[in-house]
Amino acid sequence: MTPDPLSYGLFLVGVRGSVATTVLHGLEGLRSGYPPVGMLTETDLFSDQPLVSTNNLRISGWDVAGDLHQSAAELARLNVLPRDLVDLSALLRDRVESEIAPGIPEPEDEKLVDSKSADRAKLPAKEQLEALRGDLRQWVESGRLRGGVVVHLASAERERKLAPEWMDRDADPIALLDSAPIDFPPSILYALAAILEGMPYVNFTPSPGASLPAVAGFASRQGVPVLGNDGKTGETLVKTALAPMFRDRALKVLAWEGYNMLGNRDGAALADPARKAAKIKNKDQVLPAILGESATRHTGVSIDFVPSLHDWKTAMDYIHFEGFLGVQMSMQFTWHASDSALAAPLVLDLARLALLAQSRGHAGPLHAAAPFFKNPIEVDEQDFHRQMEILTKWLAVQS
Amino acid sequence: MTPDPLSYGLFLVGVRGSVATTVLHGLEGLRSGYPPVGMLTETDLFSDQPLVSTNNLRISGWDVAGDLHQSAAELARLNVLPRDLVDLSALLRDRVESEIAPGIPEPEDEKLVDSKSADRAKLPAKEQLEALRGDLRQWVESGRLRGGVVVHLASAERERKLAPEWMDRDADPIALLDSAPIDFPPSILYALAAILEGMPYVNFTPSPGASLPAVAGFASRQGVPVLGNDGKTGETLVKTALAPMFRDRALKVLAWEGYNMLGNRDGAALADPARKAAKIKNKDQVLPAILGESATRHTGVSIDFVPSLHDWKTAMDYIHFEGFLGVQMSMQFTWHASDSALAAPLVLDLARLALLAQSRGHAGPLHAAAPFFKNPIEVDEQDFHRQMEILTKWLAVQS
Amino acid sequence: MTPDPLSYGLFLVGVRGSVATTVLHGLEGLRSGYPPVGMLTETDLFSDQPLVSTNNLRISGWDVAGDLHQSAAELARLNVLPRDLVDLSALLRDRVESEIAPGIPEPEDEKLVDSKSADRAKLPAKEQLEALRGDLRQWVESGRLRGGVVVHLASAERERKLAPEWMDRDADPIALLDSAPIDFPPSILYALAAILEGMPYVNFTPSPGASLPAVAGFASRQGVPVLGNDGKTGETLVKTALAPMFRDRALKVLAWEGYNMLGNRDGAALADPARKAAKIKNKDQVLPAILGESATRHTGVSIDFVPSLHDWKTAMDYIHFEGFLGVQMSMQFTWHASDSALAAPLVLDLARLALLAQSRGHAGPLHAAAPFFKNPIEVDEQDFHRQMEILTKWLAVQS
Amino acid sequence: MTPDPLSYGLFLVGVRGSVATTVLHGLEGLRSGYPPVGMLTETDLFSDQPLVSTNNLRISGWDVAGDLHQSAAELARLNVLPRDLVDLSALLRDRVESEIAPGIPEPEDEKLVDSKSADRAKLPAKEQLEALRGDLRQWVESGRLRGGVVVHLASAERERKLAPEWMDRDADPIALLDSAPIDFPPSILYALAAILEGMPYVNFTPSPGASLPAVAGFASRQGVPVLGNDGKTGETLVKTALAPMFRDRALKVLAWEGYNMLGNRDGAALADPARKAAKIKNKDQVLPAILGESATRHTGVSIDFVPSLHDWKTAMDYIHFEGFLGVQMSMQFTWHASDSALAAPLVLDLARLALLAQSRGHAGPLHAAAPFFKNPIEVDEQDFHRQMEILTKWLAVQS
Repeated sequence: MTPDPLSYGLFLVGVRGSVATTVLHGLEGLRSGYPPVGMLTETDLFSDQPLVSTNNLRISGWDVAGDLHQSAAELARLNVLPRDLVDLSALLRDRVESEIAPGIPEPEDEKLVDSKSADRAKLPAKEQLEALRGDLRQWVESGRLRGGVVVHLASAERERKLAPEWMDRDADPIALLDSAPIDFPPSILYALAAILEGMPYVNFTPSPGASLPAVAGFASRQGVPVLGNDGKTGETLVKTALAPMFRDRALKVLAWEGYNMLGNRDGAALADPARKAAKIKNKDQVLPAILGESATRHTGVSIDFVPSLHDWKTAMDYIHFEGFLGVQMSMQFTWHASDSALAAPLVLDLARLALLAQSRGHAGPLHAAAPFFKNPIEVDEQDFHRQMEILTKWLAVQS
Repeated sequence: MTPDPLSYGLFLVGVRGSVATTVLHGLEGLRSGYPPVGMLTETDLFSDQPLVSTNNLRISGWDVAGDLHQSAAELARLNVLPRDLVDLSALLRDRVESEIAPGIPEPEDEKLVDSKSADRAKLPAKEQLEALRGDLRQWVESGRLRGGVVVHLASAERERKLAPEWMDRDADPIALLDSAPIDFPPSILYALAAILEGMPYVNFTPSPGASLPAVAGFASRQGVPVLGNDGKTGETLVKTALAPMFRDRALKVLAWEGYNMLGNRDGAALADPARKAAKIKNKDQVLPAILGESATRHTGVSIDFVPSLHDWKTAMDYIHFEGFLGVQMSMQFTWHASDSALAAPLVLDLARLALLAQSRGHAGPLHAAAPFFKNPIEVDEQDFHRQMEILTKWLAVQS
Repeated sequence: MTPDPLSYGLFLVGVRGSVATTVLHGLEGLRSGYPPVGMLTETDLFSDQPLVSTNNLRISGWDVAGDLHQSAAELARLNVLPRDLVDLSALLRDRVESEIAPGIPEPEDEKLVDSKSADRAKLPAKEQLEALRGDLRQWVESGRLRGGVVVHLASAERERKLAPEWMDRDADPIALLDSAPIDFPPSILYALAAILEGMPYVNFTPSPGASLPAVAGFASRQGVPVLGNDGKTGETLVKTALAPMFRDRALKVLAWEGYNMLGNRDGAALADPARKAAKIKNKDQVLPAILGESATRHTGVSIDFVPSLHDWKTAMDYIHFEGFLGVQMSMQFTWHASDSALAAPLVLDLARLALLAQSRGHAGPLHAAAPFFKNPIEVDEQDFHRQMEILTKWLAVQS
Repeated sequence: MTPDPLSYGLFLVGVRGSVATTVLHGLEGLRSGYPPVGMLTETDLFSDQPLVSTNNLRISGWDVAGDLHQSAAELARLNVLPRDLVDLSALLRDRVESEIAPGIPEPEDEKLVDSKSADRAKLPAKEQLEALRGDLRQWVESGRLRGGVVVHLASAERERKLAPEWMDRDADPIALLDSAPIDFPPSILYALAAILEGMPYVNFTPSPGASLPAVAGFASRQGVPVLGNDGKTGETLVKTALAPMFRDRALKVLAWEGYNMLGNRDGAALADPARKAAKIKNKDQVLPAILGESATRHTGVSIDFVPSLHDWKTAMDYIHFEGFLGVQMSMQFTWHASDSALAAPLVLDLARLALLAQSRGHAGPLHAAAPFFKNPIEVDEQDFHRQMEILTKWLAVQS
């Protein structure tokens, strides 16, 4: 495949992970005739919008370990990727593998990462930032690309305490990096690299990324759209679609207990309580936001690592609610879905939406991306349907 | 309780049934301090609207059999009504019982009905209509009421074939009654009686009521609001709240099978296939309307009579859907709720909404009532959240 | 693979169906190292028994249509068969295809069947029987086999009314065939062919097979074991494992509603009410047998054809029960499993058990096979655990 | 009610708790005609056994706080006790209240307990033992009882480390008490008091009670039956009834995750990790015992306190399993039941079984009681059906 002069780069953090591997094969699948199921940008809602064609998205990215061929084989084994598509995409994987740049690992992953990523981990934050910018420039040049978008897909980072200046929308994040500690959140560096290179940044993870006021403000001033945080793919999506029903019938939710089981690399990472915390927080906050603090006497979210499920996330939720005259009733649901199959089309949607926003001159956090995220930056609305209204209105204004 | 000069009549068809009995005790409960859980008209959404106070609603109605005290005792036994409220309301039940008028039974219920209702069944349609109007005038007078609203709560009628003129919005339904067959749908007669007496008519059942064009048009010309059809209380409510999520993620629903179990009088009536048909149709149509015919390869709804459940309706739904690259996933939910406890607050909401519409001069079908119904008259939108938007906008314009 | 002098024939009715195709590939899988998950005959329970090795089972059989390669490809697509095993078994499928004999179709399948099967359908019953016997002798000879076992795996037959003599254990079924109607149940003919050729007959379907007294008696007199009816693979298995718990806690089951969804050829066949009846009856009878008629006020079983599920059978059961002092409680379960993956190892277990019984001189219905069947011949016990005790004791006596 | 010369005492530890309150009202209910649903001792299995009549059981007991009338009102509100039975039993509650003795509280409950129990908590272990014995003698005398049985129903104790001598079946537990620490497990003291008074001891809780070898051995030497530990009422019962099905089909359980939600005093106590540990251990051990360590790659049990559920325990279990050729399948179940309504009839069954065992001269742990317990003393078998066989055989030998 020769570089296309109309192509845009889709630069993925965690490019060998399950979601990225599904995105890569998905692009190939779309080219070879698979219908775009799961992609909102391929529905009537976007029919009048000047979107970048999925044919013109070219994947590169960073990772700290792994092998794309192995990832693809594993996803085929788990019935997430069709085997014919995996066979068809061997050369594409070779091309992407040849361009992958080393990533910035979490300290606790030290033993698992390749030596180049380990080396990069030792650099001061500012030098890490420059290395990431160099990667972006290199990919743009070698692919003769018109532009690009960075999508963060790596596992959840540990929560870290940052200096208070990061909460200031007017602070200069590049200057703050000078006094950054050794153990600085990589997701912020990826965000800054994208912004400095004039590329939109999409954070599909619960890691901070561009959501800190100093980074969000910087993106606004630099005229670059940023989207995030934490892709809303499964149980939380259902919660935010269903909780409004209880609110709009004035039913009192007494308890909403959600039990999540998953078995992929994300699941293993979440066995670390420090990394689990951010994820749980995002998942648990949506109900009080929709139902009101007083309406939800008791909400709980747990995530358990069940290795045999691999990429298949199963959630069981129990909702105890009160109706007229104190009568107690219940609802429960089970959600059984492939994490990567749900996430991949959203990644494509978000990349196209980010490029669309950029083409219209949008700067800073894109509120219209709210329905795609568990914790949308600067948006308090958690009701999925109202988030869809925000998006719909934004599209109408733009078109 | 002496009649209140500000009171409005709440005239219930099927006044001794479970829903009506719960409405009656609910009004008493609200007066004695139970919180209005389940009532949308008591939330902020309606805070600026000049609603009739629930303290000023006075119940009367029709029924073909039964006894209010027995209905109340049964609902207390099933934990739908608090026992203290049943004890507290004995005098109120006595008052209502003393005023109940005979109803118009379905022919197949012949053996179960009291003699006065059986007598009324034998009258020609037009005389039945006059009898119902007489009942309304009598209740208004004896209660010194300022007005009233009729709410139809009887069991689903058999489907009947009517003359084609009934499908004409400009036809005169009163004239059509002259050639009405013996076996004419009672729900239409209740609707016409209400309209002729200048009272809004709410149809909480799948029976035709005011939904036929000839009746809806007549209501418009007479300047009377009509609301319906078929209260959306349980499984169908969940469907219309959840299906938009699949649409708005562009996921392809392959099958949506809904299994309903219920054990009350409604359940027994539905054992009659002719009466079940209308109900099933209303429940089954909502998915194609939201997801598109092509998206739903296979949807099914079944209703089974499980006597031990009594008023507790349990539904189990299985949703099979396809995502990106053909990956198949599933969701299932169980809904376990008291039919009457869900319906009663909606009846109060609808009665107040109907009177509000009348006070603003609304005539004919009230589209803003759509979120309360499985089959809203003249409204195609089945997405619960979009129906809520319709209501919200109507309220904003009015206030 | 050259014929093995120690081999036994595994002669399958419906040899191109999903279950048979899974059995075929399973045998190849066991030879190539797949662990025998799902096979009771490979557990300690059977460790002292002189079982025929799975290496020595050689498949042939009858079918009325289809193509083994297509069946295998379809099962691979549905993730029931591992793709590597399907690739590995191409030559084996070729060999089996070359030996498949025409089957005896149901009249309503007329248009779907191949011409040889259509021709066979036109023969009188006795000639059909002779043709089947000829097939068996041909396979034994060509494969130089020491013996064989016939396993019936075809779709459920329509229920047919037979002459009363078939209910007489002492009647001669061969003589009765002379006056058999044109439309005679094929499953009985397969049973008689096997018995006459001295081969055990296993009926994995709800069709009559060897369960009619005249056939069962004949098998006893001929000294041939017969096993059946209707493999207990999924929802019914769970029922018979779980219902004893309610009995042994003296809990009163008020209702047990089972909803089955399936999408394979069996599912399509069951859309025919006449063929569905036998299946439903077998599934519904187990609860009263375990819990007592009086304990189960209401049990229901439904089967719906949901094409998108293909071989994946999903069942949702709701159990309403009463405990101490009239308290009402509930349990529900969902079972999601591949029909063929559950059935295939049972087919291998039953074939080996049948040959074991024959080697010990057992004649007629084998009661010890009860745990494998929904409707075990001549066994009233439906409690799965007590059925396992019957098997365990039989094995202990024999070894 | 005058004392009956044939009466036996049913001495309950935690006599004001939900289970004990349900037992008390259950006895009254049985006398007034409620059917004995949930009681195995009232089924045919026990029809030939010389059981003590439930009419001849007289309740007394210990507690550290609370009020029987309040407990009863609360259970009526939760629909666990019929209101008419609560009204009917007011005098009986008065009688029992007048006889309740102070209990031995856990140190962390210090602030919640009444002053007499607090005083008793300060005594050395041996004096506590003597006080309990005095209570038993007092109740026997005042009630002119022929004997009695002690049933431990208090909340789970914290796990404590005891001296190694307690693990010696030949040790003298009374002598060991001399060197007992201040904070000694009360359940052991209740057990020793019962044994020394010649009364069987039933431990319905996960606390040690009579299960320590030194106590069990002492019971054997004293000729007193002891039964325990930890009543198997709900989710664990289902597990031990269902897991054998997977074993007997040779299916490989990959994961079995059990999520328990409960809202009663037990639930609140389990918020203390030290008290939760014993409970979780008992619930989690049953699967490996039935399925084998290797078969269960991953089993998990969690218990969450969901206050709105009160006495209604809801469990959701997810079972991931592998079948033939590596196919992965799943089952899930939801169990929704009243903890007290399930436990109370078992308490009556166990009291009668214990007195039956004593009448036949049984000494020490009663293995035949295994089906009633999560962690049966000295019995490794966890398969519920095999445990029922043990009981059935014991009954057959005895009768």
